[in-house]
Amino acid sequence: MSRLESFIRRMEAQRACIDFAARAGNTPQGPIFELGLGNGRTYDHLRERFPGRDIFVFERNVNAHAASMPDAEHLIVGDITETLPRAVLRFRGRVALVHSDLGSGDEARDRAFAARIAPLLAEAVAPLGLVASDQPLVIAGWQTLPLPPGIAESRYFLYRKPKA
Amino acid sequence: MSRLESFIRRMEAQRACIDFAARAGNTPQGPIFELGLGNGRTYDHLRERFPGRDIFVFERNVNAHAASMPDAEHLIVGDITETLPRAVLRFRGRVALVHSDLGSGDEARDRAFAARIAPLLAEAVAPLGLVASDQPLVIAGWQTLPLPPGIAESRYFLYRKPKA
Repeated sequence: MSRLESFIRRMEAQRACIDFAARAGNTPQGPIFELGLGNGRTYDHLRERFPGRDIFVFERNVNAHAASMPDAEHLIVGDITETLPRAVLRFRGRVALVHSDLGSGDEARDRAFAARIAPLLAEAVAPLGLVASDQPLVIAGWQTLPLPPGIAESRYFLYRKPKA
Repeated sequence: MSRLESFIRRMEAQRACIDFAARAGNTPQGPIFELGLGNGRTYDHLRERFPGRDIFVFERNVNAHAASMPDAEHLIVGDITETLPRAVLRFRGRVALVHSDLGSGDEARDRAFAARIAPLLAEAVAPLGLVASDQPLVIAGWQTLPLPPGIAESRYFLYRKPKA
């Protein structure tokens, strides 16, 4: 499979996971965390699917399209390993959905990073809240959800925090 | 439609156009031009779909994934408005397929750029050769092909040069 094909499938999986989260009853009330702004396309999709929600975006090097730039209050600039712990203190147990697309393509590095942020997400997320991630996350007690129809296994990962 | 949605559809259209070109009988013999390397995903797809063909890639700022880097002979570095005219002198009337994904998102700029490269492509391409482009191109006498099934109009553009 070409890298283009693989990329398209990953983007389709990402969209399907966000659209699943956006369906009525699938995500509790509360703010959304978007880890990685990039070009801002996914932030734009989250905004469209979750109108009226606070979406906080974490990014080290802000370089998004002007049409997809969060306002200053919702853009948390810095290294996620520093900014996320502070955000956890502020939002502990209240975050409805985390979308994380931070893969660098370096598998060992991505796995180490995922291991580092998983416990932070576990603290941040609300009961029954969701995490959609391009990387597998290991969080004890959380439920791994099946992917939406048409999405191949391991293209994306969906997790739900248990009820308190 | 969100920017993510729009992006996915453009990537799907790009893939469909390349796959159409790669089907037996749709593209004559000859080298391929890829205008813009970017991350190299589309170059990777072209390589996979057209094994054994010479694929020349034009890029100003080379910043591709290591897995998708053309060799020095096939990577033409520089401003396309300077490198493409030289390539036309070398390959006049022999290029089987041009894929061009150079859109900047600035519509006026993209239109001006497309107008500038269209006559160069008209000279480079072989009889019955194809151009797949993210931008509309106006080339007198060329045939605009219908897009592959499932691709909405104006997501991508496919042109065929007439028989000599």
